[in-house]
Amino acid sequence: MKIGEKRLYLQSVIKKQNIILKQMKKVVAGIDIGGTNTVLGLVDGEGNIHEESCIKTGDFKDVNDFVAEMSDAIKKLANKEYELAGIGIGAPNANYYKGTIEHAANLPWKGIIPLAEMISNKTGVQVALTNDANAAAVGEMVFGGAKGMKNFIVLTLGTGLGSGIVINGRLVYGHTAFAGEMGHTTIIPEGRECGCGKKGCLETYASASGIVRTVLYLLSELKAESPLRNMAPSAITSKIIAEAAANNDPVAIRAMDYTAEALGLGIVNAIIFLSPEAIFLFGGLAKAGDMLFKPVREYVDKNVMQVFKGTVKILPSGISEDNAAVLGAAALVWNDLSR
Amino acid sequence: MKIGEKRLYLQSVIKKQNIILKQMKKVVAGIDIGGTNTVLGLVDGEGNIHEESCIKTGDFKDVNDFVAEMSDAIKKLANKEYELAGIGIGAPNANYYKGTIEHAANLPWKGIIPLAEMISNKTGVQVALTNDANAAAVGEMVFGGAKGMKNFIVLTLGTGLGSGIVINGRLVYGHTAFAGEMGHTTIIPEGRECGCGKKGCLETYASASGIVRTVLYLLSELKAESPLRNMAPSAITSKIIAEAAANNDPVAIRAMDYTAEALGLGIVNAIIFLSPEAIFLFGGLAKAGDMLFKPVREYVDKNVMQVFKGTVKILPSGISEDNAAVLGAAALVWNDLSR
Repeated sequence: MKIGEKRLYLQSVIKKQNIILKQMKKVVAGIDIGGTNTVLGLVDGEGNIHEESCIKTGDFKDVNDFVAEMSDAIKKLANKEYELAGIGIGAPNANYYKGTIEHAANLPWKGIIPLAEMISNKTGVQVALTNDANAAAVGEMVFGGAKGMKNFIVLTLGTGLGSGIVINGRLVYGHTAFAGEMGHTTIIPEGRECGCGKKGCLETYASASGIVRTVLYLLSELKAESPLRNMAPSAITSKIIAEAAANNDPVAIRAMDYTAEALGLGIVNAIIFLSPEAIFLFGGLAKAGDMLFKPVREYVDKNVMQVFKGTVKILPSGISEDNAAVLGAAALVWNDLSR
Repeated sequence: MKIGEKRLYLQSVIKKQNIILKQMKKVVAGIDIGGTNTVLGLVDGEGNIHEESCIKTGDFKDVNDFVAEMSDAIKKLANKEYELAGIGIGAPNANYYKGTIEHAANLPWKGIIPLAEMISNKTGVQVALTNDANAAAVGEMVFGGAKGMKNFIVLTLGTGLGSGIVINGRLVYGHTAFAGEMGHTTIIPEGRECGCGKKGCLETYASASGIVRTVLYLLSELKAESPLRNMAPSAITSKIIAEAAANNDPVAIRAMDYTAEALGLGIVNAIIFLSPEAIFLFGGLAKAGDMLFKPVREYVDKNVMQVFKGTVKILPSGISEDNAAVLGAAALVWNDLSR
């Protein structure tokens, strides 16, 4: 090939590669690490999940095996159709600043695990890591109901109460990376025992486990008949309570109101601190819908300082719960890329 | 004059003007508007106050007269020695976003006053306006003990409890501009009546007026002798209580401890929300020194979640109280200029 021909040939190769690159969809891998399952999905910039897979977290006693498996799975999913822009991970006890998982009681790996670095080394792309409530907040901002909002809070009402706080358009990690443990703010001094070692924490009242404790308390206080009296306490769930309330069970209705009052107290304190535009409620307990949202809004409106009245929307999450964990994890990276 | 000569002449004029400009010290006017006095000072970039004056706020029933007086006073102070880079104002009920003072009960002007715009129109420089606790926090960041810190809180322990919160290097105003009312977070549900209409607010316990209420409560509960029993409640001040505690009065010592416990409870909640690097205590009650700081540190350390233990410094303000209000107000503008 002569020099002129060679240049023409190379130009045509470059052109073809550019076309291929343009056709490849840019995606971020979102990983949600839970005590039972780890879910992985490829998420594009509009919040569509393209490929998904799931493994059992407990199958990997050695974190090196987990990292190898995840890295292979990402490469396999991404293959030639996608351009992998980064990896976002939601995990318990995650330190965003250091990219580590630290002393997570529900995961098989003890001590401090530099997971972000380990996965980045295997895959060659940037990795961001935070806890699931923070990931939910970033997910809400990038793909959900908080688009365009600069100041809001997401509360995840699961077994516990997690929170992700966004101020001035940025997630609040604080000095330690562990800010936003709103579930452990004290609402009743010397109140219910909490797993954290303190007493009276918000999550001992306002969470799926909290409302079960409230039902037991009300069964002790009230004389009302209730089908909940015929169940073992360990079998009562927030879902059963919500269904009983929908069927006009007086104990369940009162429990819903009591929970809303406690949640309202925690939300009022959050508003006085941070004056958010919205509070999003997410997770199992939030599925009770208006039975929870209506009294929460009423208690907040009744108890908040005059200057904040009517300034805060209390909303359901704008993201479907099935996809929220993977979308939130991927949103961590999409949010960084959009700056 | 020929063209060449004219150019040379103009160049020499410009050069002289540049020399004059270089010699003029760049300053920001800091204004602290209180119910009694309004203090004005010119503050340079190192936090030195060059000129100061004071007027009686109550002498100006019409805000237009106040604006004219302040603008003249600034011009007179600034005169030809200084280059005025802007004006920062600390005032009650100030809305930073709008530059307004809104329904301030302790000032002579009713309704919503667009003070920043009014003063800017008269002086031709930028004007920033916020409340005194926020100004104290910015002052701490620019001139005080929080230099270089990205996440910290300043608590002003005066008649009430004010707070200024800095997250990711920026003051938290929230959606409404009124974030940071930590004095009105509930620490004891159905506790002491507060001026805000709620009950059990932090400031009803942890403030100069709060500790006086605590002394009255303890005088009712305890049998101990105390010189405080010989004073009219309206005559007891936090200063008298601190002095009595220093003289080993058992009621005053107990009151100091009770106050520290309440303040510790509020601080613990703030840490769990925001994970600051430091909490600065400022104002009358903070003058009690170690009698207050020592038990506050102990209560915080005892009650905070494990993950935050040892991560937060509880410190006295790094700014002398005499200058703090004017420095804080000026820091608002210096902070904007340094971005």
